[in-house]
Amino acid sequence: MKKPLHIIKIGGNVIDDADELNRFLADFSKIKEDKILVHGGGKLATKLAAQLGIPQKMVEGRRITDANTLELITMVYGGLISKNIVADLANHGNAALGLSGADAMSITSKFRPKKPIDFGFVGDVEEVHAANITKLLQSGFIPVYCALTHDGKGQLLNTNADTLAAVIASALGGDYRCKLYYCFEKKGVMEDVDDTNSVVSELNPTNYAALKAKGKIFEGMIPKLDNAFSAVQNGVEETYILQAKDLSSLIIKKKNHGTRITDQTV
Amino acid sequence: MKKPLHIIKIGGNVIDDADELNRFLADFSKIKEDKILVHGGGKLATKLAAQLGIPQKMVEGRRITDANTLELITMVYGGLISKNIVADLANHGNAALGLSGADAMSITSKFRPKKPIDFGFVGDVEEVHAANITKLLQSGFIPVYCALTHDGKGQLLNTNADTLAAVIASALGGDYRCKLYYCFEKKGVMEDVDDTNSVVSELNPTNYAALKAKGKIFEGMIPKLDNAFSAVQNGVEETYILQAKDLSSLIIKKKNHGTRITDQTV
Repeated sequence: MKKPLHIIKIGGNVIDDADELNRFLADFSKIKEDKILVHGGGKLATKLAAQLGIPQKMVEGRRITDANTLELITMVYGGLISKNIVADLANHGNAALGLSGADAMSITSKFRPKKPIDFGFVGDVEEVHAANITKLLQSGFIPVYCALTHDGKGQLLNTNADTLAAVIASALGGDYRCKLYYCFEKKGVMEDVDDTNSVVSELNPTNYAALKAKGKIFEGMIPKLDNAFSAVQNGVEETYILQAKDLSSLIIKKKNHGTRITDQTV
Repeated sequence: MKKPLHIIKIGGNVIDDADELNRFLADFSKIKEDKILVHGGGKLATKLAAQLGIPQKMVEGRRITDANTLELITMVYGGLISKNIVADLANHGNAALGLSGADAMSITSKFRPKKPIDFGFVGDVEEVHAANITKLLQSGFIPVYCALTHDGKGQLLNTNADTLAAVIASALGGDYRCKLYYCFEKKGVMEDVDDTNSVVSELNPTNYAALKAKGKIFEGMIPKLDNAFSAVQNGVEETYILQAKDLSSLIIKKKNHGTRITDQTV
């Protein structure tokens, strides 16, 4: 029987808060089964861009990545955030590896088409070399991915971290029972953002479509949910959207938390 | 019989010249035996420090590392340089991993004593966890180390790259026949810096002491040579100081290049 593998994405809000990040990594380190962490960038890149006078332009919540911005995020995502997470995990006895998709030649992407919008050095994932990631896991290491991939020709590319988590979870299904978790600041997908009791415990294509039609899904959540549904359709065994604080309770104590994404229409 | 392992250090001058770095990495990628790359930082960190208004202070050629400078080098060494080297090696079909000593919990260090000079976040290597590095090599990966280690308690520390190369080569002797190469811009250790024909082909403790006494050893070379001799004394099978361009000719074609460091006094 295949072993479980937990693929966990943390977003900018966890990264930006040192205390919350430390607490999260302490929780993450308690998960004894195989695991992979995927992290976003947070506000550090934007802050450093301002300090360096590199103008930043966002379109539909995505960063236009010119050559200077690519250098910047390679420093911030691939260096500062990645290596500090790895050092923190080491402190908890976790032998992590801070990786981009270029490391271990694990994830290639291709430039996003220049039309309708030229995002610059942004890559859409082409292939996950699952065998290489599996080798790292089998040697007892914990891959920690930042939101960078490569085109296989020496070029790093900025790649959306939510998508990265989904494609990694989808690709490793041959070797593992993959479970995907999107951790963010809210308790889950909520019908009413002001009411923490309105968490939707299960989201399937039917009620997702209905909630979207009613305008109940916050626009920024839609790409994340689309990634989550795509993972489910690609055989990822369990997919959740939940608060970072609840992760270890869900995985270790098997308590119910957040919103489970499923393709089972009840 | 133990397999050979090549531990290769490249310095700032190779890093700073994009063409030379590309050529070096193309050569490095041709080495089919197990290998580890250790890279210095180059001028990029100093340049970025100036852009960000972080004053830099060097004492005896070593960087005083305050908190801002540590962030800076974590970005530049651990992010920008590391991930670009890894992407370039991937282009040559080499599955590299851009690591700090915190990655794979592989190299711990302790804060350098605050007296006589407080270097700040600078660590002297305490322990190399050879088994973890061996696991990566045995899985077919190529570790690429930047000049950062960790104290095991979550703190990254700036660590001299020459020393790092020497301690890695010394620590892996249980599993491999280690060969250490310091690549720099000159043809080797020279009796007369202006005469490229004056390369000392072999340096042993006796002629090293004699050349030092005669003032023939450039001061900046002394820490590098001390690291090289310490590696030899710790069982590293072959240690060379040579020009980056000559590396593949030495390793692959077995031609003579550079200065071989030995503890055999003839």
